[in-house]
Amino acid sequence: MEIIPNILAERYASSSMKSIWSVHEKILMERNFWIAVLKSQKELGLDVSQNEINDYESVKNKVDLDSIKKREVITKHDVKAKIEEFNSLAGHQHIHKGMTSRDLTENVEQIQIYKSLQLTLKKSVAAMVILSKKAEQYKNVLISGKSHNVAAQPTTLGKRFAMYGEELLLVVRNFEQLVERYPIRGIKGAVGTQIDQLTLFGDDVTKVSLLEDNIIKHLGFNNSFKIVGQVYPRSLDFEVISLLNQLTCAPVSFAKTLRIMAGHELASEGFGEGQVGSSAMPHKMNARSCERICGFQQVLKGYLTMISNVAGDQWNEGDVSCSVVRRVAIPDSFFVIDGLLETFITVLNQMEVYPAAIEKENGRYLPFLVTTTILMKAVKNGAGREAAHDAIKEHAISVAKDIRLGEINENDLISRLAEDDRVNLDRKILDEILGDYNRLTGNASNQVDLFLSEVNSWIKRYPDSLDFKTENIL
Amino acid sequence: MEIIPNILAERYASSSMKSIWSVHEKILMERNFWIAVLKSQKELGLDVSQNEINDYESVKNKVDLDSIKKREVITKHDVKAKIEEFNSLAGHQHIHKGMTSRDLTENVEQIQIYKSLQLTLKKSVAAMVILSKKAEQYKNVLISGKSHNVAAQPTTLGKRFAMYGEELLLVVRNFEQLVERYPIRGIKGAVGTQIDQLTLFGDDVTKVSLLEDNIIKHLGFNNSFKIVGQVYPRSLDFEVISLLNQLTCAPVSFAKTLRIMAGHELASEGFGEGQVGSSAMPHKMNARSCERICGFQQVLKGYLTMISNVAGDQWNEGDVSCSVVRRVAIPDSFFVIDGLLETFITVLNQMEVYPAAIEKENGRYLPFLVTTTILMKAVKNGAGREAAHDAIKEHAISVAKDIRLGEINENDLISRLAEDDRVNLDRKILDEILGDYNRLTGNASNQVDLFLSEVNSWIKRYPDSLDFKTENIL
Amino acid sequence: MEIIPNILAERYASSSMKSIWSVHEKILMERNFWIAVLKSQKELGLDVSQNEINDYESVKNKVDLDSIKKREVITKHDVKAKIEEFNSLAGHQHIHKGMTSRDLTENVEQIQIYKSLQLTLKKSVAAMVILSKKAEQYKNVLISGKSHNVAAQPTTLGKRFAMYGEELLLVVRNFEQLVERYPIRGIKGAVGTQIDQLTLFGDDVTKVSLLEDNIIKHLGFNNSFKIVGQVYPRSLDFEVISLLNQLTCAPVSFAKTLRIMAGHELASEGFGEGQVGSSAMPHKMNARSCERICGFQQVLKGYLTMISNVAGDQWNEGDVSCSVVRRVAIPDSFFVIDGLLETFITVLNQMEVYPAAIEKENGRYLPFLVTTTILMKAVKNGAGREAAHDAIKEHAISVAKDIRLGEINENDLISRLAEDDRVNLDRKILDEILGDYNRLTGNASNQVDLFLSEVNSWIKRYPDSLDFKTENIL
Amino acid sequence: MEIIPNILAERYASSSMKSIWSVHEKILMERNFWIAVLKSQKELGLDVSQNEINDYESVKNKVDLDSIKKREVITKHDVKAKIEEFNSLAGHQHIHKGMTSRDLTENVEQIQIYKSLQLTLKKSVAAMVILSKKAEQYKNVLISGKSHNVAAQPTTLGKRFAMYGEELLLVVRNFEQLVERYPIRGIKGAVGTQIDQLTLFGDDVTKVSLLEDNIIKHLGFNNSFKIVGQVYPRSLDFEVISLLNQLTCAPVSFAKTLRIMAGHELASEGFGEGQVGSSAMPHKMNARSCERICGFQQVLKGYLTMISNVAGDQWNEGDVSCSVVRRVAIPDSFFVIDGLLETFITVLNQMEVYPAAIEKENGRYLPFLVTTTILMKAVKNGAGREAAHDAIKEHAISVAKDIRLGEINENDLISRLAEDDRVNLDRKILDEILGDYNRLTGNASNQVDLFLSEVNSWIKRYPDSLDFKTENIL
Repeated sequence: MEIIPNILAERYASSSMKSIWSVHEKILMERNFWIAVLKSQKELGLDVSQNEINDYESVKNKVDLDSIKKREVITKHDVKAKIEEFNSLAGHQHIHKGMTSRDLTENVEQIQIYKSLQLTLKKSVAAMVILSKKAEQYKNVLISGKSHNVAAQPTTLGKRFAMYGEELLLVVRNFEQLVERYPIRGIKGAVGTQIDQLTLFGDDVTKVSLLEDNIIKHLGFNNSFKIVGQVYPRSLDFEVISLLNQLTCAPVSFAKTLRIMAGHELASEGFGEGQVGSSAMPHKMNARSCERICGFQQVLKGYLTMISNVAGDQWNEGDVSCSVVRRVAIPDSFFVIDGLLETFITVLNQMEVYPAAIEKENGRYLPFLVTTTILMKAVKNGAGREAAHDAIKEHAISVAKDIRLGEINENDLISRLAEDDRVNLDRKILDEILGDYNRLTGNASNQVDLFLSEVNSWIKRYPDSLDFKTENIL
Repeated sequence: MEIIPNILAERYASSSMKSIWSVHEKILMERNFWIAVLKSQKELGLDVSQNEINDYESVKNKVDLDSIKKREVITKHDVKAKIEEFNSLAGHQHIHKGMTSRDLTENVEQIQIYKSLQLTLKKSVAAMVILSKKAEQYKNVLISGKSHNVAAQPTTLGKRFAMYGEELLLVVRNFEQLVERYPIRGIKGAVGTQIDQLTLFGDDVTKVSLLEDNIIKHLGFNNSFKIVGQVYPRSLDFEVISLLNQLTCAPVSFAKTLRIMAGHELASEGFGEGQVGSSAMPHKMNARSCERICGFQQVLKGYLTMISNVAGDQWNEGDVSCSVVRRVAIPDSFFVIDGLLETFITVLNQMEVYPAAIEKENGRYLPFLVTTTILMKAVKNGAGREAAHDAIKEHAISVAKDIRLGEINENDLISRLAEDDRVNLDRKILDEILGDYNRLTGNASNQVDLFLSEVNSWIKRYPDSLDFKTENIL
Repeated sequence: MEIIPNILAERYASSSMKSIWSVHEKILMERNFWIAVLKSQKELGLDVSQNEINDYESVKNKVDLDSIKKREVITKHDVKAKIEEFNSLAGHQHIHKGMTSRDLTENVEQIQIYKSLQLTLKKSVAAMVILSKKAEQYKNVLISGKSHNVAAQPTTLGKRFAMYGEELLLVVRNFEQLVERYPIRGIKGAVGTQIDQLTLFGDDVTKVSLLEDNIIKHLGFNNSFKIVGQVYPRSLDFEVISLLNQLTCAPVSFAKTLRIMAGHELASEGFGEGQVGSSAMPHKMNARSCERICGFQQVLKGYLTMISNVAGDQWNEGDVSCSVVRRVAIPDSFFVIDGLLETFITVLNQMEVYPAAIEKENGRYLPFLVTTTILMKAVKNGAGREAAHDAIKEHAISVAKDIRLGEINENDLISRLAEDDRVNLDRKILDEILGDYNRLTGNASNQVDLFLSEVNSWIKRYPDSLDFKTENIL
Repeated sequence: MEIIPNILAERYASSSMKSIWSVHEKILMERNFWIAVLKSQKELGLDVSQNEINDYESVKNKVDLDSIKKREVITKHDVKAKIEEFNSLAGHQHIHKGMTSRDLTENVEQIQIYKSLQLTLKKSVAAMVILSKKAEQYKNVLISGKSHNVAAQPTTLGKRFAMYGEELLLVVRNFEQLVERYPIRGIKGAVGTQIDQLTLFGDDVTKVSLLEDNIIKHLGFNNSFKIVGQVYPRSLDFEVISLLNQLTCAPVSFAKTLRIMAGHELASEGFGEGQVGSSAMPHKMNARSCERICGFQQVLKGYLTMISNVAGDQWNEGDVSCSVVRRVAIPDSFFVIDGLLETFITVLNQMEVYPAAIEKENGRYLPFLVTTTILMKAVKNGAGREAAHDAIKEHAISVAKDIRLGEINENDLISRLAEDDRVNLDRKILDEILGDYNRLTGNASNQVDLFLSEVNSWIKRYPDSLDFKTENIL
């Protein structure tokens, strides 16, 4: 029968993320894990020769999934089938000594998670770097900053990008710390007492402790659990998936804002090389990839729900009620975040900004925003304060009404004020007030610089982030 | 590169559920849908010959996924690629007239959902029927009913099963109604105004209305939307996934209770044919399948989270921010419920009950539960009320303490009372009180009969439910 | 110490919803419940006089919370404290006979839920009716229907409202059925066997059955559970909260769309009596209430999460791990839906539509949408098909570009085509094509009529819905 | 009308947590915030006298909620009402200069969150310390470690506690780091450009920067946002609530395990001073508080859902669609975690362990777990390996069957083996093997020591944690 593919992996994730979670790759990880344990056991006195270990090394890449499956049909136990296959290939029976199935599966799953975290971190830094380039590019482009989806005060487009950038920075920092401290379960046995390794090493506590330290170091982890039961605490999975969720927030707020901006034709997510808009509907700037970014977040929230329900659900030393949940939620979460970051970076690279449209929008709203300055100048210029105030208010309300009723297309408040003697300011002065852009946006540009400076310190630590290339997204 | 499989489909779902969601099957559904539209368009006067329709019919089973994929690489549009392939096979260009992509995709997805709902309903009824057989079998087996995980009052094991059965019945009833009323989107065009079909039929509203009615009837639906936009309301998806979630509750409460009962060795989920417990650990009755049932529910809650976040998130006439969410959550939800029901039915079929262990537990707790009756009889028999009351209380507390301190293994309250003159009842009478089992369980057996009678009316409507066979679960 | 108020109740819910969940009202419900049981017990032969029942009736409104609290400090049991208080007021000890605490609390909570459901249903129908009035009012107002937040095809504003209306209708129908079938737990005792009522009535099964039927009828329920344990199945709570969630979807999609429309100044949610926009910022049409509607949905999703985690979590016959969850999630869900409906109806009543702005937007997009008709007419009028097609395409792309670059403010495609000889159509004909509004919107108005007709049948059954008045919202 | 109380605050939270979120306390925080800003503005040159500041200081504790409410009815703006009230009390109009409402509300809410985090951290450390005391107390008490809720390998009760302890430790560490780095929004104005403070200080960027630094330092924060919009990023709220959720996992797994242990009468959560078990049902050890701990977690998951849905939902510079969500989810999350920790610590303090019952359970399962050792000894002692192996297997299966069928009450495997010549070991030797407890539990006790040593370093940093007293829980 036809295989139903994992849609997240096949449609959205990058090949590097898929590879971590492929069946083939997992078997290699398992075999490397067994060999690492065996080497360490040898060092600590277990009777196994270097030649025998070499025999395992030499066959570890011979992955025959069908043969393993056949063994599983007989043993009805997947770990046993894999042990038999590897032993049979190597011609020895030395692996998995003093280990239970969980000593293999928990650790190898954690290796997969760890590799996925590292890949995600790398991609997140790249996204942050590219976002910072956009913030720099539009650092001084004045836009009508909006609250309640309506213009409120001027800001710059670069600051808007840097605002989402700072949100991203916050979580990338946490993320880096998580990767640093992520602890592996280690070899602890069926209920965590290490009794089987102790038996193997004649109750020598020091040797068992050394064995574990060696393996953890070998696998590249900085940290490990000491007191687990059958399983490592699932609240660690919760921590991981929760951070992936947090990581989506800045990209999603960005994407949602771009969808809204596209509706106003202020910007678009752009098109791929060679792609063109519909000739019949050339105004269509569909933010499809941004919509997908938003969708990804909802998917990831679902996996958070799943994992939140296995964290804190340990009965005694553990059981497998979390098994199906983790099989689904953990790899799929990484496929989602990977697809999201690929899409986010693609959008950042391809997005287009339409300064003329932005200017036009500013033309509509800025006059309302400078009326307090106009009043001050008018009074300074000799106008009566009350008269000027009344004039400004009258005209402002009347302009707003005329726009809404469709009687005018553009905000002509400045013209009306120029013609009103009560205001006593000529058109040139009024235009100057309106045009003093640098002042209107306050600290916006300075804030962008702060962000750039933060990102620069990351670029130094992650120099590859400057050259990050996405795969082709759908 | 190796394909990452959908773990829920490949590991847990039945072949009938997988088939509904296979790529191959979906192409057949799409082609049948196009043909149905075409036939109806012909009836209503569109210029297409029966021979041409026959040509489509004759090639519809020729599904060549590679060829479609090649076309998609060129067109960059999956629906267009499928149209071209089908047209090319048939040698005509008649399908998809007056339709937009969503007229195809929304409807075909709903056909998949509808078929999945019908399959799930059938399986739910089967589960209910098998549960009722178990309720009948253990209708009169007295067990210590528990609140707070501690014995509270006697009930029967059959009533415990019927209790979960009634919970299941409640939702199966709702489920049947949902299948009955489930509405399809129909052919509404890009923003729902049917403008393109109207154009095709010279603005003839009646014909466009007939076209839609024909297709809906042809597809076997009883109901349709009338006023959708680009998409049908996603709150319908929420309703579906929500009901699937509700459907898990009775099986999961059952499974959790069986896990607890297995811990007391009162029952086990049994073993498959030929399977034996560990010889070293023959007491191990691992409720692995029950644990999996519990895990399935958590997974389904995750999909509910996803879908809850696209319901009520329609901007204007719609967009594709829900696309990735629905691609994941909808098929995967059906794979989960399917796996859950397969597992639940398997457990029901294989479970074992240990009456001796149940009796032993009753022996421990029942004496505490009949003390009020003993007091009444004692007074009737001439004992002083206060003296008898004090005696009973003293002995009860002392028995509980002795059990907890490990000084006795069995509840010997009856013996102690028999030897206490203040109680004035001989052992035989005391044993009779304790042994009046039928009375102790109140209406429990009658309630089981009520459940059986309800289920019988379902068996009449779903006679196949009696012969339901699960596939082999892992 | 100062009491922390329930913010949802105090800030957003109506006084009628608050009253259902007030401590005072609950005590009245409990006392009425006890009296109903007592009356029925009397009818069935229990030794209690009518005078004694009258004594309870006469004091039932004397609710002294302090006195009850004092009793609870002594008994450490809230139900016992309430029994003692009521008995002491009446001067008898007849209530609560053969009942356990859960026989009181489960049923009274279900009465609260039932009343809340009825109130919510009434309000939902009212919302649907008011929405239908708006759909009627704007039935023929052409707007640019949007997909991906960008104009796609013309529709009418009335159809847009009716589209959300149909989504609402779907769930209101389900909701009415839920209210109809909502089952109450009834008097079943500690583990559901009714043993204590059986004891009270000398093991007379018929009397116990009659007792329950009487009470259910008295309380106004149509349905009851038969086979519960200590508690009724929590999947019923899930069903309730899930439907409340579904009920939010149409209002939230409406509110989100209005927030977007407000950003384009096409409409606003309006202002309360006497409220004015800022004079400095007269363009600010903040959709604050719509934002709140969106927020309410997120809150309700949280309660769905809570309740989904107690459904299917019954150990044996039940425990109180759901207690704190239900205390929070159930009343608060009703406060939220109540606040949402109050806000939604308020927005519907106060919203303003700006036809001139809508027209202006149409002016921008419609020319692109009628190019295929123009081509047909041009050819009919003698233009060369290829020449005309090239001309149209050229001009369309150039107009879109000019708008984006800010070189033109309005879509002047029609003017450009009128001046191009290749098209061979004069301005008048082109304007006619563009102006044939009724045709452009297809079946939109007919669909509105379908919705109105559906709603009319509801108005007949719920005539009060026409006069529904919201309370003043914040 | 009667006020509906916040059930979480009033029923479960401690008075110290309630105080942080009381209306009265919040007004004090606001006034202190205004005064801090004013002082700093004075230092930086704003024209306000020390006497005027003193006037504000002297009236800040005069909180008259009614008066504020009256002002709000007129202004229809809560922040304005509070400004007027404070100004009126002080007799000046200096506060809130250059500030928008959000400059007040965002920061004060963050102060509330920060204080709540600090309180929660303190309580978490206390819980960890008390848990470590229990781990120490039962460090060497052998229990049957369980997987799948069935005995698997021996461990110690102390290690079981330490296992949950290590899970708790992991999150408390993260939690401490979050408190350390938690950033405050600061004074940024309506869209985050600080334009209004810049205006106030004549566009002096340095002064505006100093103003913010002063205030942040004054409030006790170590960190602040630099580039926010109207609001601080809601992913920070997500991070906070997510960590609170993670914090529940260890207590909940502990509580669930204790509920299961109570079902086996191995332990109970104990009773409060003076409380006694039912005399009729003295075996009832209801784990009600543990059930509540489990319930609390489900509630907190609901708030996580809420907050996850406002994180990443920022449109442009922000709106208030998150307002109702945060009003509910943030304080209520802290009430829940507070109630959970109070309950958890209470259970830890009051719990009772029944070593005799544990021993009895061990008696039942341990014989199965030492059969491999018996085989080795038998062979050493001269028995034939195959004969001995067959004998052991035969007896083990037969014992398990007899227990299940109720034919024996205790595992008599040792006796049977002692009587079987094939095994060739006398009873004394067999008892010795079974009794070698220290060896059976492997590294369990050493792991407890590791945990104790970790906790000791926390006690040094949080010496108060040793004396933590819970309030009386219900």
